[in-house]
Amino acid sequence: MAQIIDGKKISSEIKEEIKSVCSQLVKEKKQLPGLVTILVGNNPASKAYVNSKAKSCNEVGMVSKIEILDESISEEELISLINRFNNDKNYHGILVQLPLPKYINESNVIKSIIPEKDVDGFHPINVGKLVIGEETLIPCTPYGILELLKRYNIETKGKHVVVVGRSNIVGKPIANLLLQKRDGANAVVTIVHSAAKNISFYTKQADILIAAIGSPKFIKAEMLKENVVVIDVGINRVEDANSPKGYKIIGDVDFDEVSKIASFITPVPGGVGPMTIAMLLKNTLIAYKHLTKNIE
Amino acid sequence: MAQIIDGKKISSEIKEEIKSVCSQLVKEKKQLPGLVTILVGNNPASKAYVNSKAKSCNEVGMVSKIEILDESISEEELISLINRFNNDKNYHGILVQLPLPKYINESNVIKSIIPEKDVDGFHPINVGKLVIGEETLIPCTPYGILELLKRYNIETKGKHVVVVGRSNIVGKPIANLLLQKRDGANAVVTIVHSAAKNISFYTKQADILIAAIGSPKFIKAEMLKENVVVIDVGINRVEDANSPKGYKIIGDVDFDEVSKIASFITPVPGGVGPMTIAMLLKNTLIAYKHLTKNIE
Ligand SMILES: NC(=O)c1ccc[n+]([C@@H]2O[C@H](COP(=O)([O-])OP(=O)(O)OC[C@H]3O[C@@H](n4cnc5c(N)ncnc54)[C@H](OP(=O)(O)O)[C@@H]3O)[C@@H](O)[C@H]2O)c1
Ligand SMILES: NC(=O)c1ccc[n+]([C@@H]2O[C@H](COP(=O)([O-])OP(=O)(O)OC[C@H]3O[C@@H](n4cnc5c(N)ncnc54)[C@H](OP(=O)(O)O)[C@@H]3O)[C@@H](O)[C@H]2O)c1
Repeated sequence: MAQIIDGKKISSEIKEEIKSVCSQLVKEKKQLPGLVTILVGNNPASKAYVNSKAKSCNEVGMVSKIEILDESISEEELISLINRFNNDKNYHGILVQLPLPKYINESNVIKSIIPEKDVDGFHPINVGKLVIGEETLIPCTPYGILELLKRYNIETKGKHVVVVGRSNIVGKPIANLLLQKRDGANAVVTIVHSAAKNISFYTKQADILIAAIGSPKFIKAEMLKENVVVIDVGINRVEDANSPKGYKIIGDVDFDEVSKIASFITPVPGGVGPMTIAMLLKNTLIAYKHLTKNIE
Repeated sequence: MAQIIDGKKISSEIKEEIKSVCSQLVKEKKQLPGLVTILVGNNPASKAYVNSKAKSCNEVGMVSKIEILDESISEEELISLINRFNNDKNYHGILVQLPLPKYINESNVIKSIIPEKDVDGFHPINVGKLVIGEETLIPCTPYGILELLKRYNIETKGKHVVVVGRSNIVGKPIANLLLQKRDGANAVVTIVHSAAKNISFYTKQADILIAAIGSPKFIKAEMLKENVVVIDVGINRVEDANSPKGYKIIGDVDFDEVSKIASFITPVPGGVGPMTIAMLLKNTLIAYKHLTKNIE
């Protein structure tokens, strides 16, 4: 049976680390790190995400602000609000909750955040620095995956990492991070996606399999080799008559079967999910340190 | 026997295309595209590169300028020269010949070029846009590889591309380009490098093998499968008593043996090399069109 990679536990540890930094700042009567989250419209899922981010900020003792804007806001108005926060010394991280309404160009909005406050790591200049191998703000989900591998002492050097999925928020950045020539990376990386003819041909080779597909139980045991390390990024809502809510959340991996053959596996929920928020806090702290020159 | 991918011929075709655009601009009494190349110091190899770039510019009818700076120039002076060209309407492309002397921070210099004139495609914002899938100036060598695959109608969709090498100028950008979900790309991509334990395990899987290693004849026939398409980026100088110069240029691929089993192969010289300069001219033209709003 696979060892469970406990993202909930690791994320709590990271939050505790951040909390103790914030307490120290309070003791020293220094400014606290601040995160502003901007939400356009009132999509319930987005609202829930934004609230849980704010709650986590408060838990660790960071300053947090939520700006909720009416769906009718124009791109210019949104960007001018972002500009206000670009210049506001109280906030070190700016996060625009995606997706945005269709008539707003997401790329323009992301580019309007100054790279130093881009705690989502989606600004092209930060993506470029990540790929080149320069220090930068790393997108939260890939950053969380790196942290899980590190804290479970999972060797990546020379290993074959197979990433299923090539989104800009998960697949591409984690692939580019893991192929860098440095500790905690240095892997041979293969990226597969829907144009691949025979997904199993690739997944079967994986020493470390990262699933970021958005398809429930897509990865089956017979697609993998024994002792693979499995990182399941998927968050899929499926009907569940046994749950009071009528649904449950499952991953992109068939956990019950795959956990019998894997050496390590992240559960869903409780794996990558909680790490994403922890790394958002971490990024806010990193941005704070750079902007206030309070660098370790 | 493999069909030769004739980079010399294709690069001539591309130059002819650019030349005819420039002649048209002359006829219309419009401004011409201009490229400035900045060389620091007097490394003979760098000088030869810079001269051949300028010569190609002249051949197609572009404006070209070479700025040769003394090795003693400071980083600030270099950047202030770049700033002058950033604001000079006569030049649409700025290229700083690398490598720079050790005491100059290459990354700072690259970032000082405005992204719109960054015809090498090395600015992190351009790298980021390439990875995200936005339109941008693509680094010349990877751009040349895409062009060769396209003009020889080599299918990439769903194919397994194995890239050996992960440099910022070849390996990483070509891998990121070929995995994009669009025509002329959409491949499954594996990147290997010196930390891989068994290179052949990966190279044997390649439908398309891209070698960017810098090691003469590194890729042997027995590392490949029949009918592979081979793109050899390597430029290695090896001793050759039979040549009047005392040396010859060979690739990263053992051409004589590999050409017996491959379906297509780029020779060295005459493969990727000439494409790099052609795509530099193409990038200068693209930058010109954007900056002058003379967009097709
Ligand atoms: N834990 C977290 O904090 C977190 C964060 C972000 C996302 N997620 C979850 O992770 C999953 C992926 O998210 P995302 O934003 O990366 O998704 P996305 O943008 O929808 O990308 C999905 C990727 O999977 C590929 N794919 C889809 N079906 C496939 C198939 N049958 N075979 C092979 N590849 C296939 C797609 O290929 P093409 O490119 O060819 O279309 C695409 O590259 C979702 O469940 C999402 O909710 C979780
Ligand atoms: N045709 C053109 O216009 C053009 C343009 C640019 C470059 N080139 C030529 O292309 C070649 C590569 O250039 P580059 O700038 O990409 O080189 P580079 O920066 O030196 O990178 C070489 C890459 O090859 C990998 N490598 C080296 N030895 C290896 C081995 N034994 N097994 C597996 N991987 C190995 C390295 O791995 P690590 O990362 O692990 O060190 C590195 O990623 C050179 O010959 C260069 O002259 C030609």
